[in-house]
Amino acid sequence: MHFSAAGDEVWAVDNFAKRKWELEEGIEPLLPTPTLHRRVQRWKEVTNRDIHLRVGDLCNHRFVYKLLDEVKPDAIIHYAEQPSAPYSMQSRSTAVDTQVNNVVGTLNLLFAMRNACPDAHLVKLGTMGEYGTPNIDIEEGYLNLTHNGRTDTVLFPKKPGSFYHLSKVHDSNNIYFACRVWGITATDLNQGVVYGIDTDQTLMDPELSTSFHYDDVFGTVLNRFLVQACAAHPLTVYGKGGQTRGFLNIKDTLQCVELAARQPAKKGEFRVMNQFTEQFAVLDLAEKVQASGSRAGLKVEVSHVPNPRMEQEEHYYNAKHSKLADLGLRPNLLTDSVLDSMLATVRGSAGRISTHFFQPRIVWATKK
Amino acid sequence: MHFSAAGDEVWAVDNFAKRKWELEEGIEPLLPTPTLHRRVQRWKEVTNRDIHLRVGDLCNHRFVYKLLDEVKPDAIIHYAEQPSAPYSMQSRSTAVDTQVNNVVGTLNLLFAMRNACPDAHLVKLGTMGEYGTPNIDIEEGYLNLTHNGRTDTVLFPKKPGSFYHLSKVHDSNNIYFACRVWGITATDLNQGVVYGIDTDQTLMDPELSTSFHYDDVFGTVLNRFLVQACAAHPLTVYGKGGQTRGFLNIKDTLQCVELAARQPAKKGEFRVMNQFTEQFAVLDLAEKVQASGSRAGLKVEVSHVPNPRMEQEEHYYNAKHSKLADLGLRPNLLTDSVLDSMLATVRGSAGRISTHFFQPRIVWATKK
Repeated sequence: MHFSAAGDEVWAVDNFAKRKWELEEGIEPLLPTPTLHRRVQRWKEVTNRDIHLRVGDLCNHRFVYKLLDEVKPDAIIHYAEQPSAPYSMQSRSTAVDTQVNNVVGTLNLLFAMRNACPDAHLVKLGTMGEYGTPNIDIEEGYLNLTHNGRTDTVLFPKKPGSFYHLSKVHDSNNIYFACRVWGITATDLNQGVVYGIDTDQTLMDPELSTSFHYDDVFGTVLNRFLVQACAAHPLTVYGKGGQTRGFLNIKDTLQCVELAARQPAKKGEFRVMNQFTEQFAVLDLAEKVQASGSRAGLKVEVSHVPNPRMEQEEHYYNAKHSKLADLGLRPNLLTDSVLDSMLATVRGSAGRISTHFFQPRIVWATKK
Repeated sequence: MHFSAAGDEVWAVDNFAKRKWELEEGIEPLLPTPTLHRRVQRWKEVTNRDIHLRVGDLCNHRFVYKLLDEVKPDAIIHYAEQPSAPYSMQSRSTAVDTQVNNVVGTLNLLFAMRNACPDAHLVKLGTMGEYGTPNIDIEEGYLNLTHNGRTDTVLFPKKPGSFYHLSKVHDSNNIYFACRVWGITATDLNQGVVYGIDTDQTLMDPELSTSFHYDDVFGTVLNRFLVQACAAHPLTVYGKGGQTRGFLNIKDTLQCVELAARQPAKKGEFRVMNQFTEQFAVLDLAEKVQASGSRAGLKVEVSHVPNPRMEQEEHYYNAKHSKLADLGLRPNLLTDSVLDSMLATVRGSAGRISTHFFQPRIVWATKK
């Protein structure tokens, strides 16, 4: 919708895998999501703009080859992956499915690009979680290093924390190789944790709303806290809450993807950018939501629940994120008014909240 | 055979994927390979020792779970992967099959170990090719680095040169994660290029011979040069021949795997060792084979053919390899007498050589 509104010719491709995974988990977004066909119709009614819709699976290479042959895109925004760390950690089956879906889908796309549109720009959604929480500053994609008196520039060493995050590292390695060997042009957007509900386009019509998840599988932490605050449920901080990550508003996700697409990587370049605007510790966010609730007359408690993940709960974290700013990103920061506005929006749908989605059900490992 | 000869109880597991891939390519090893069932029988006849045989595919998780439940192994030597870079670079199909086979097989094994034998030691065959040819010294698995005044120890940055090599990097990342999260114990043996024909066990009987490949898909460079020398065919050096790699005799492969298995990694450790004994440039090896041929009365020519791979043909290369020496490795170095003996063995089977297997058929990318 963001690109269509800007006048680009857009082809939306989906196989509805995420909706199937939601059904498997028995979870739903806060607001109902109409079918994609309906959303495309509604978009046309509201804006008089067409979005072309193709239903198919990137893991079906014939579909991908045919699609790119037909469309010959200038840019490909690749979001077609299983996006949840907990989902991937449920079982052998979901771990394998996650890695196969993400790795094979991306490989098929790379081969199809090589075949049909070798000069197109691949904008790939990565994740800041690829880096993990190293004890050194996190650079944007590459690290210049000196070792025993010699120097080299290498992909920044990764230490991902789930089979999902590993799948993204596998993807990055595969795409970097395709850039080196075939001259594929790619931008890997290592995105932080997204929060937020509205974008300029979703506000045009209720049927265009985002898939706002606050559950333990597909939800992100700030969204969950906001919903918990509205449901008079204690905010569930995993462990100590010192886990620090990069965060960004969903509006900035759109800005970043557009900036990357309009100012593409150089031919054959594997460009990596860290896509977030601010760093927060989980406990800081809980306290911010508590304060926002207080301003709205809600009494919000913060509770610490056993951490289902294996992760450092106190650690150094300093991740660079200047490349997108250099391209023109104007961040929507997490001010009190932004937080209060999100809280008000969630309160407006408070009747749809299911408190069953709050407790983490998937554990990384049984503690010994 | 090596472990069985030492008195260990051995279960051999195979799905004959490699033999299928050989059929696809129309290539054969220098010496015929009897069925595995026949080789197990012959081993019993020769040594009176049993090797248990199970036919099955690691990508079939039910097979793997059942196998480990039944056997409860102390150590698992994991060689069950598609091992050829050219094979993986042939097409989309072989690239995807390589990564799915290798990654899924290894994931299934990790999950089955977690389930059935969480204290077993996984000895995984990696490859020196995971590292690529960085401009810095290659360490054994990890790199201690200082960046902006802070320090960390990270997995050594990798820059693999084919979809096959990438699959091994994916494996290493997945296994390291399983060690961190579940306490799996693993040794990743980043092996150099293997050469050689005979081991103590293969010499016991012709039906126990190794699968000696000299073709462009599964062959390794020194083996190919020896066969070319015996076939009065110019040695086919790819490009300039300055490509430098770690090499080891097949006898040392067995030594290394045994050393790793007898002196396992610590519980929960992801141990990485570089498994090679000497570094050579490809052109150096060609000249050594030329000299060996000359000693045997053969006139051997060296030719340079267009390099089918995308790789640096002149580069820095200094890879550490002290960990296996510290465990007790006594290298069989590439002396003139070793080379002359290999040449003599190949000459003994010269009638079986197919010169059709010499020319590289699979290119990494069409040069622009």
